[in-house]
Amino acid sequence: MSLQLFEKQVYAGRRDVLKQNFGHDGLIVLLGNEESSMSYKDNHYPFRQDSSFLYYFGLDVAGIAAVIDTDTGGEVIFGNELSMDDIVWTGILPTVSEMAALVGVTQTRPYNDITHYIHKAITAGRTVHVLPPYRPENKIKLAAWLNVSLQDVADHVSIKLIKAVIAQRVIKTPLEVAELEKAVSTSVDMQLAVIKNTRPGVKGYELVAKAHEVAMAADSRLGYPAIITPHGQTLHTHDYSHTLQNGQMLLCDIGAENAMHYGGDLTRTAPVGKTFTTKQAELYQVVLDSMDHAISMLKPGVRYKDIHLAACQKLVEGLSQAGMMKGDPAEAVAAGAHTMFFQCGLGHMLGMDTHDMEDLGEPYVGYTDTLKKETNIFGLKSLRLGRELEAGYVLTIEPGIYIIPELIDRWQAENKYADFINYSVLNTYRDFGGIRIEDNFLITDTGSHLLGKYLPKSLKEIEELKG
Amino acid sequence: MSLQLFEKQVYAGRRDVLKQNFGHDGLIVLLGNEESSMSYKDNHYPFRQDSSFLYYFGLDVAGIAAVIDTDTGGEVIFGNELSMDDIVWTGILPTVSEMAALVGVTQTRPYNDITHYIHKAITAGRTVHVLPPYRPENKIKLAAWLNVSLQDVADHVSIKLIKAVIAQRVIKTPLEVAELEKAVSTSVDMQLAVIKNTRPGVKGYELVAKAHEVAMAADSRLGYPAIITPHGQTLHTHDYSHTLQNGQMLLCDIGAENAMHYGGDLTRTAPVGKTFTTKQAELYQVVLDSMDHAISMLKPGVRYKDIHLAACQKLVEGLSQAGMMKGDPAEAVAAGAHTMFFQCGLGHMLGMDTHDMEDLGEPYVGYTDTLKKETNIFGLKSLRLGRELEAGYVLTIEPGIYIIPELIDRWQAENKYADFINYSVLNTYRDFGGIRIEDNFLITDTGSHLLGKYLPKSLKEIEELKG
Repeated sequence: MSLQLFEKQVYAGRRDVLKQNFGHDGLIVLLGNEESSMSYKDNHYPFRQDSSFLYYFGLDVAGIAAVIDTDTGGEVIFGNELSMDDIVWTGILPTVSEMAALVGVTQTRPYNDITHYIHKAITAGRTVHVLPPYRPENKIKLAAWLNVSLQDVADHVSIKLIKAVIAQRVIKTPLEVAELEKAVSTSVDMQLAVIKNTRPGVKGYELVAKAHEVAMAADSRLGYPAIITPHGQTLHTHDYSHTLQNGQMLLCDIGAENAMHYGGDLTRTAPVGKTFTTKQAELYQVVLDSMDHAISMLKPGVRYKDIHLAACQKLVEGLSQAGMMKGDPAEAVAAGAHTMFFQCGLGHMLGMDTHDMEDLGEPYVGYTDTLKKETNIFGLKSLRLGRELEAGYVLTIEPGIYIIPELIDRWQAENKYADFINYSVLNTYRDFGGIRIEDNFLITDTGSHLLGKYLPKSLKEIEELKG
Repeated sequence: MSLQLFEKQVYAGRRDVLKQNFGHDGLIVLLGNEESSMSYKDNHYPFRQDSSFLYYFGLDVAGIAAVIDTDTGGEVIFGNELSMDDIVWTGILPTVSEMAALVGVTQTRPYNDITHYIHKAITAGRTVHVLPPYRPENKIKLAAWLNVSLQDVADHVSIKLIKAVIAQRVIKTPLEVAELEKAVSTSVDMQLAVIKNTRPGVKGYELVAKAHEVAMAADSRLGYPAIITPHGQTLHTHDYSHTLQNGQMLLCDIGAENAMHYGGDLTRTAPVGKTFTTKQAELYQVVLDSMDHAISMLKPGVRYKDIHLAACQKLVEGLSQAGMMKGDPAEAVAAGAHTMFFQCGLGHMLGMDTHDMEDLGEPYVGYTDTLKKETNIFGLKSLRLGRELEAGYVLTIEPGIYIIPELIDRWQAENKYADFINYSVLNTYRDFGGIRIEDNFLITDTGSHLLGKYLPKSLKEIEELKG
């Protein structure tokens, strides 16, 4: 087993910043993940460590946890040593104290000691800060450690810790940006493999196989389940059973997660045959214009929500040209009429998690105390990022047009947005499918920087790839 | 979303058999699986349905459960209909009642109704039979449904239901055998891709990529994490970071799980270069002789434990020829001295799960009320299958020789098995690594049948593949 890590100073430095920002306020508990069982206990999914644990403690092994004592500055890693049976089955690993030393931690204890350690702190009246669990086994552990019911765990997570972790992780350091550049470049190679192998008669799963092969051959994995479909209007479909046909478009949304667990998140939409149809090319250009407009707005101080709304307006302008929308584009967006075509948000934070830090809560990652998420408005409720941009943010830009027959039928029956939507024309596009184009950006002091190698995106470039 | 299913009569027939075997005895609850979160709630591992649920109810979708009322014969599927938001994100699925009809069930209810449904049965004094949960979220559900604490769920699983399900699933029907043949043949193709691409300078993960590509291109996935390593002595290593070197052997243990979730489980050990060294060839032949002897014993009425012990004796005979063991082979095996080289069992049941039905408990799957597992004897405690064979069983045969330096050092220091182990010779093999050869068999009325296409296994055949 070879552990892939940054220098130990990186982790110690991150913890020092956290402690400094936190002040003297009890214990911070960071829970590593366990193995996840597929079809029986010992048959595991590929292990994925918790991202915040990786950020502060780096160790990519199952079954460990860590405590930071913000009053004393002490740090303890809790984990169990291997038995001879473990060695026979899984091989030699460093001891827990050897692993701890690799990330600058000197104190270690057996895993089960953590229950008593935390109970003692609670009894002494100290505050124990934990992050919200997204895996059920960690929820069970936290209930036991905090001595509360499963139902009450959610009320015992620390908003202060959530905010402190986000404040730190949201600004990517040069070391992290270098990892993100690598992960996005691998994602570009995956996209190229898929696009070049897309042709009539190919099955979706054969293209997924190509993406996997490129990722794995770069010591990476897929950071999220691939979306590879001729039915791009379904935002998160993972059905790969379709046989591709001439005249269709293939929407491919894939990203590599590299060995250090930083990820890319790219989408391209390409014709199954050699060229786009006239209708496809027209709407592709609408999406691309919206994307380019959004990219041109990226810089510190601009609210991402405003970029989203500007991108939506560009979509409406293009859809009006195509005859599917009408009326004033700004009014259409204000009314929400564009959500017939673009039901989701323009993008999200990106980092170790594809939706970076989503486990800590979108209201904290993508929004602020003064800019709250609109949770009741169709479209905006799916905008994961709204806040003002800062240098060091890494995010996606991913506009799209999605023609969903079920939505047309429902809204047309309600005569919804009839002032802005030209249903008679729209109905001629019922089987159009969906188009999304997505790239990844670092916010710089003056604007933005495209992460990774350039992946062709113009109509001409995409068709040339198919040549 | 396209659901892959057998004819609905298949599932109805299986449930009828279960009801008949069970008699009038309250409710049987079968829990489907949920999505499993990777790094945040909505980022999922590939969905894997519970195998017993698939066996009786077939539906490969997350978030459903089923109840069989053994007193009335009634069957209910509990699940929630899609909202418009679901349709936007994940596309159209059949309704719950449409899905239920596909597997011959007419009654459906919203998912959350199941809690009240079960509580009502318990209040009425009826018995509620559940299988042991291997996923924490299912444990949490069962605790709520059965109205017991998390700790007490284990005491409330139904041994009667476990035994009834195993009795049925352990005998593979022709329909299942056909799926297993396909899955093993895909596994053969994966093995061939790995062996042919094994050469000095290749990274382990590049070979894993090849295996994945072949699996996915056959609409399959890996049924368990690949073992692809030059350090074959570590039984379950998933470290793929090694650069392969001339003179090493690569141990590759991989299997496809097909779209119907039946799996193969094959192992080959091949030279990284073109040929085995003399030492490698000698021990490879020892393992192969042991394997062929075990295969020759496969037939109904023979205890698998006896086949295991006979295979161990063959290994000892070969290891004695090589100078690493001494004394009477039968006595050596009786004493357990062979476990220096072969620490695990000869094989296990195979089906929808790689270790078929392991979630239901090895004591019930691999053993009987009269033949109990030896849980305190090194070696035998890892023998997953011991019971007398019956026609219709599907299982693996996988002997091996694993040279584990840490085990040599520990046992030599204790002078353990000094009458049988020639430590001075063994120490010259310290860095030898490991060899395993594994194929999959159906027990027939008169003997056994090799599942899937033939995968070369003799020294000559393996070297020819490298040509």
